Amino acid sequence: MEIKAFKILTKSPSDLSGLIELVDSGKINPAEVICIIGKTEGNGGRNDFTRDLAMLAFEDYFSSMLRISRADVTDKIIFSLSGGCEGVVSPHIVVYTKSGTSKNIPAVEKRLALGIGFTREFKPEEIGRMPQIEETARVIKEIVDQLQIDSPKDVHLIQMKGAIPSFTYEEGEQAQKANKPMRSDMVYSRGASALAAAVATGEIEIESLSDDLVCIDYDKYSSTASCSAKPGLKRTEIMVLGNSSYWDGDLKINSNILNDMLDIESIQKVLEGLGFKLSNGHLKEEDLSKLIGVYAKSEADPRGMVRGKRHTMLQDDDISDTRYSRCVLSSVLAAITGDTAVYVSTRSEHHGPQGGGTLSIIARV
Amino acid sequence: MEIKAFKILTKSPSDLSGLIELVDSGKINPAEVICIIGKTEGNGGRNDFTRDLAMLAFEDYFSSMLRISRADVTDKIIFSLSGGCEGVVSPHIVVYTKSGTSKNIPAVEKRLALGIGFTREFKPEEIGRMPQIEETARVIKEIVDQLQIDSPKDVHLIQMKGAIPSFTYEEGEQAQKANKPMRSDMVYSRGASALAAAVATGEIEIESLSDDLVCIDYDKYSSTASCSAKPGLKRTEIMVLGNSSYWDGDLKINSNILNDMLDIESIQKVLEGLGFKLSNGHLKEEDLSKLIGVYAKSEADPRGMVRGKRHTMLQDDDISDTRYSRCVLSSVLAAITGDTAVYVSTRSEHHGPQGGGTLSIIARV
Amino acid sequence: MEIKAFKILTKSPSDLSGLIELVDSGKINPAEVICIIGKTEGNGGRNDFTRDLAMLAFEDYFSSMLRISRADVTDKIIFSLSGGCEGVVSPHIVVYTKSGTSKNIPAVEKRLALGIGFTREFKPEEIGRMPQIEETARVIKEIVDQLQIDSPKDVHLIQMKGAIPSFTYEEGEQAQKANKPMRSDMVYSRGASALAAAVATGEIEIESLSDDLVCIDYDKYSSTASCSAKPGLKRTEIMVLGNSSYWDGDLKINSNILNDMLDIESIQKVLEGLGFKLSNGHLKEEDLSKLIGVYAKSEADPRGMVRGKRHTMLQDDDISDTRYSRCVLSSVLAAITGDTAVYVSTRSEHHGPQGGGTLSIIARV
Amino acid sequence: MEIKAFKILTKSPSDLSGLIELVDSGKINPAEVICIIGKTEGNGGRNDFTRDLAMLAFEDYFSSMLRISRADVTDKIIFSLSGGCEGVVSPHIVVYTKSGTSKNIPAVEKRLALGIGFTREFKPEEIGRMPQIEETARVIKEIVDQLQIDSPKDVHLIQMKGAIPSFTYEEGEQAQKANKPMRSDMVYSRGASALAAAVATGEIEIESLSDDLVCIDYDKYSSTASCSAKPGLKRTEIMVLGNSSYWDGDLKINSNILNDMLDIESIQKVLEGLGFKLSNGHLKEEDLSKLIGVYAKSEADPRGMVRGKRHTMLQDDDISDTRYSRCVLSSVLAAITGDTAVYVSTRSEHHGPQGGGTLSIIARV
Repeated sequence: MEIKAFKILTKSPSDLSGLIELVDSGKINPAEVICIIGKTEGNGGRNDFTRDLAMLAFEDYFSSMLRISRADVTDKIIFSLSGGCEGVVSPHIVVYTKSGTSKNIPAVEKRLALGIGFTREFKPEEIGRMPQIEETARVIKEIVDQLQIDSPKDVHLIQMKGAIPSFTYEEGEQAQKANKPMRSDMVYSRGASALAAAVATGEIEIESLSDDLVCIDYDKYSSTASCSAKPGLKRTEIMVLGNSSYWDGDLKINSNILNDMLDIESIQKVLEGLGFKLSNGHLKEEDLSKLIGVYAKSEADPRGMVRGKRHTMLQDDDISDTRYSRCVLSSVLAAITGDTAVYVSTRSEHHGPQGGGTLSIIARV
Repeated sequence: MEIKAFKILTKSPSDLSGLIELVDSGKINPAEVICIIGKTEGNGGRNDFTRDLAMLAFEDYFSSMLRISRADVTDKIIFSLSGGCEGVVSPHIVVYTKSGTSKNIPAVEKRLALGIGFTREFKPEEIGRMPQIEETARVIKEIVDQLQIDSPKDVHLIQMKGAIPSFTYEEGEQAQKANKPMRSDMVYSRGASALAAAVATGEIEIESLSDDLVCIDYDKYSSTASCSAKPGLKRTEIMVLGNSSYWDGDLKINSNILNDMLDIESIQKVLEGLGFKLSNGHLKEEDLSKLIGVYAKSEADPRGMVRGKRHTMLQDDDISDTRYSRCVLSSVLAAITGDTAVYVSTRSEHHGPQGGGTLSIIARV
Repeated sequence: MEIKAFKILTKSPSDLSGLIELVDSGKINPAEVICIIGKTEGNGGRNDFTRDLAMLAFEDYFSSMLRISRADVTDKIIFSLSGGCEGVVSPHIVVYTKSGTSKNIPAVEKRLALGIGFTREFKPEEIGRMPQIEETARVIKEIVDQLQIDSPKDVHLIQMKGAIPSFTYEEGEQAQKANKPMRSDMVYSRGASALAAAVATGEIEIESLSDDLVCIDYDKYSSTASCSAKPGLKRTEIMVLGNSSYWDGDLKINSNILNDMLDIESIQKVLEGLGFKLSNGHLKEEDLSKLIGVYAKSEADPRGMVRGKRHTMLQDDDISDTRYSRCVLSSVLAAITGDTAVYVSTRSEHHGPQGGGTLSIIARV
Repeated sequence: MEIKAFKILTKSPSDLSGLIELVDSGKINPAEVICIIGKTEGNGGRNDFTRDLAMLAFEDYFSSMLRISRADVTDKIIFSLSGGCEGVVSPHIVVYTKSGTSKNIPAVEKRLALGIGFTREFKPEEIGRMPQIEETARVIKEIVDQLQIDSPKDVHLIQMKGAIPSFTYEEGEQAQKANKPMRSDMVYSRGASALAAAVATGEIEIESLSDDLVCIDYDKYSSTASCSAKPGLKRTEIMVLGNSSYWDGDLKINSNILNDMLDIESIQKVLEGLGFKLSNGHLKEEDLSKLIGVYAKSEADPRGMVRGKRHTMLQDDDISDTRYSRCVLSSVLAAITGDTAVYVSTRSEHHGPQGGGTLSIIARV
């Protein structure tokens, strides 16, 4: 089994020309595509339709190429499209394919393993509470097992698009009056997904959690989660990426927490862990082509300070802190790697320490 | 003669508490204050009233402390307040004082010299054209001479707030019909100021310039300018900072062009030129207190590309490219220096190469 | 006793030139100024510094004219400056003065009466809960009594700037863990102020209220409140305006609820109640000079519908619904009155029915 | 020949459920659809992808229903999708179908006639100059002739999506140096399209125009144009709507210029001209179902004043004047008609007098 990855710059959210070229030239077999992770140039918020636009184009293409229905496309391939290309970020996708057959004898060198799965459908009242966490952790563990990953330490990225089942205004009022207000929103869905990742990888004991701690006790966090959430989505879509001695290919993944949005030492460590020799603290230009995917979570520190000094991201009513923090971390990642096709998603409830986040990098070795 | 500098974090644009404390404790003599450079938390655009708010507070305070009129305050002290604290940027001011007497015998070590001046008042039709460039260059040269700076290479920052004299809608229409459209706007005023800086320091021959090249021929640029422009301002306010063997104190300044917004090698060189030993490519935490002022100009590359990849800053109608590019460069500067109290002003017409800018850093040696 | 009113257009938030002219020409006696209500051109949000800028200018001016301290200025005069001049709204202030002596025999015609007052300082945990409501209602009643207003029906505007005492991040976490989360924010402070107005004028029985109903049970509302709230303000500032037979002058006030942001019939009724004869449903141009103050509260209907059709104001992450709803209602008011110097404040929790608001108009009779 | 119209509210830019229902129930014959005009909930700017999203969905649907290629869909049906549902505006489409056969004997009553056409492809240097105006006017006249409209006064709406052919950064620089700067942008393309409409309907003599007057001499304008422009579009797409005695059905159209964004008298006249009896100056609720399409152009008055008072729309760097002016005019139209499914497009260069616009309403008689 082998994961291959293809980084493609896009000219607009629905631009498939780069993908089509690789398929037409035989470099990508559409039947082997297992997931596509990318950044589109919307605001990353509730009225960001760039992801829908990209999805319409992808579903149309794969439905036609694979001769399956559109619904089957999204069952077969996980799309993790994140809006928000603030600052220097270049809209792009990375297409991951899975090919080959599984092997019985482990190799000396571990290679990138990637598996996908789905939770059951959630009810709106389950989101941001223990039922979401338990079910999500269960599915993650299942995927990890399938990947034949030796140790939780070899899991380096748990990418999720969390469920946010819809509810009516009246149901919302009802829940609030019942003193169990709906949490079916982006904040709680992301937070619970991240806690589930921490549970699945053994960073947190499930027994130490309760409804009351979700999005409250930020000392509990995952080091490998990267969760978004999508209004209207009923089940959570999950990808697990790690290194396994049962997988082939030339890709590896490494990760670390970010202590804050300026944590270049952590970025450097993740790169060095992949075998890169840095020059003046940054990736050498000659190594740029080996860099496949840079995935990070960002957050405007809710305590209002970065490195001991006040920031203003959370008092700004013109520009969302989500756009600022993505811009900040993307800029730092782009400066250190030399690559502007980085994927930063925000916010980072229970992703690394408060004001920080998580970082995973995939590279060719 | 000696320049002292005091970096003060502010709680709001009109927060003078830090300044007042330093004055009350005798550390700052208000009569010695020569200029105040700072960032306020507005949008940096036409409806940014945070600078006006800060100015009202400063004028009020110095007028009362120095027993002079408000108009005299702005004649005596140059205020360079720049709006826009995007991302991690921490609102702050740096107060510069000048004290002591001039000396006749040069020292071995050069130290920070700072002088200020004003152009004559401009007519709106002069802005963005040769008359603005010539008059501005003349005043800069005059200040440089007064500072006893040996060589143009010792000039490291020419900070200007450029004139944008007002004109009526009808005058604007008239000028457009006369095929000499008004250029009295931020873009042209900044561009002409920067070209004037390049002329004054010998980077460009005045003969090589003409009205037609302003904001067109971006191969001509200054390496040390940092120009903003203020609607309604009739004359350009100028500060020149360099190193001189006739000045005392413990401050030095260094500068470099930025080739793009991610140019960390240039940032590293400016820091190393000030004597800092970097660790993993960034300033050591123990050296942070020696860092006084970080002044840079940013720009969303008008060619639409950064490091060969598309950026979307110039097609975004929700957030201005000015805010994005300040956020990008500030983030990179904050990551390398560890300081979020950095001063980035945008855009950078004729400031360094296109898509790049200028960077000047003042530090304690 | 007589209230006079002066509507003054401003050129910027700190532009006092119109006020100074009226004072210098003897038309306004600064010692008689009792309140100033105006719109400044900020975003009306947390980082709107235009109100601070205006306040600094006003405090400076009145402190100097009345030879009292700045703190005494804000004790003597209530300033209700609201940010947000969206769309056609023209930045302006209306200066209200009180002069003459009280009379014992009521006149046949009632005239505008205006009184001001302050609550005690609130603790952050009181905001949005019964203590805020009770204390605020108490002070409103006191003012109404002082104004010698015959009936609660003669009260037409209860303008308040509500307290939002600050609390630390840790205090906030503490309160959340104690299951009594802090409500010291704009939403709850405005909501509780409006409920207090309804209690004071007898629209709601205090017994029918409880902490749990604040910002939940929107069937309970005031018909005359216009409440904003200001972070950091410790006490609520209150103005009550009504018609009284014990007051002289040529001003009257009238009010009505708005059923939604497009409720022109309600606007027409308020105008007609002041004696205006409308032409084609709008104010005649010749009557424009009699229009003094138009005060309204707006709200993007939280149910997501206006007149049975979906609106998108609450799903827009680029522009706040507060800016949209102010723009909508201001436009409608400006179209019907022909005046763009209208004062619309948002949001309208417990101000008129949900999705609606309140409207009060002061005119010369 | 008969035009039928179907107003359909949409739940998202790609929501075709309402259309599909009408097709499936036999009310709309997809083969008869001639144009679709609608508002989508983007920002209406350069990074508004909601139109692309809607287009992808429409092309997909009609391509499948009509068994023609996607390119043929856009040749057969004109789509005029305008982004920007500010304030109360409800996203919607109006589907127009053409059916029946042409008749030789004119009826007494004129009915809505609708024709479409395309200009040739333009070169970027032609945009905003005479070649664009001449070619566009030529095509409009051709369509008017085909519609058998008696008099230019019977033309009430010339809806266009103007070409903005792309050019490279270098081509742009080249053109600027050659003193004939590129005008291939939204402003000039809209302006030239509107002038072409005025030429085609005889409001302006072609001889009175020249390159120099485009977007300068705003006293020259069309009373019936409604032009947008789309970056990358090579030819201008044109719809002409008027009343003709050779057409059947129950629809009529009427129009008027708007003198400013608050011109309710003009709105009332257009409604009354369609036979509506207004109540208190607004459309009666019982007549709402007869209202089909409300099409208007808005503009933040470039002179900075509305009704003699300053507005701030053009100095706001947080929110575009395009969004403000659409919000203002939409609110006024919604208040007078009671319908929030209105179509306002901005800006209005050469559309009605400066600071004003055009208004066309289609109703069932």
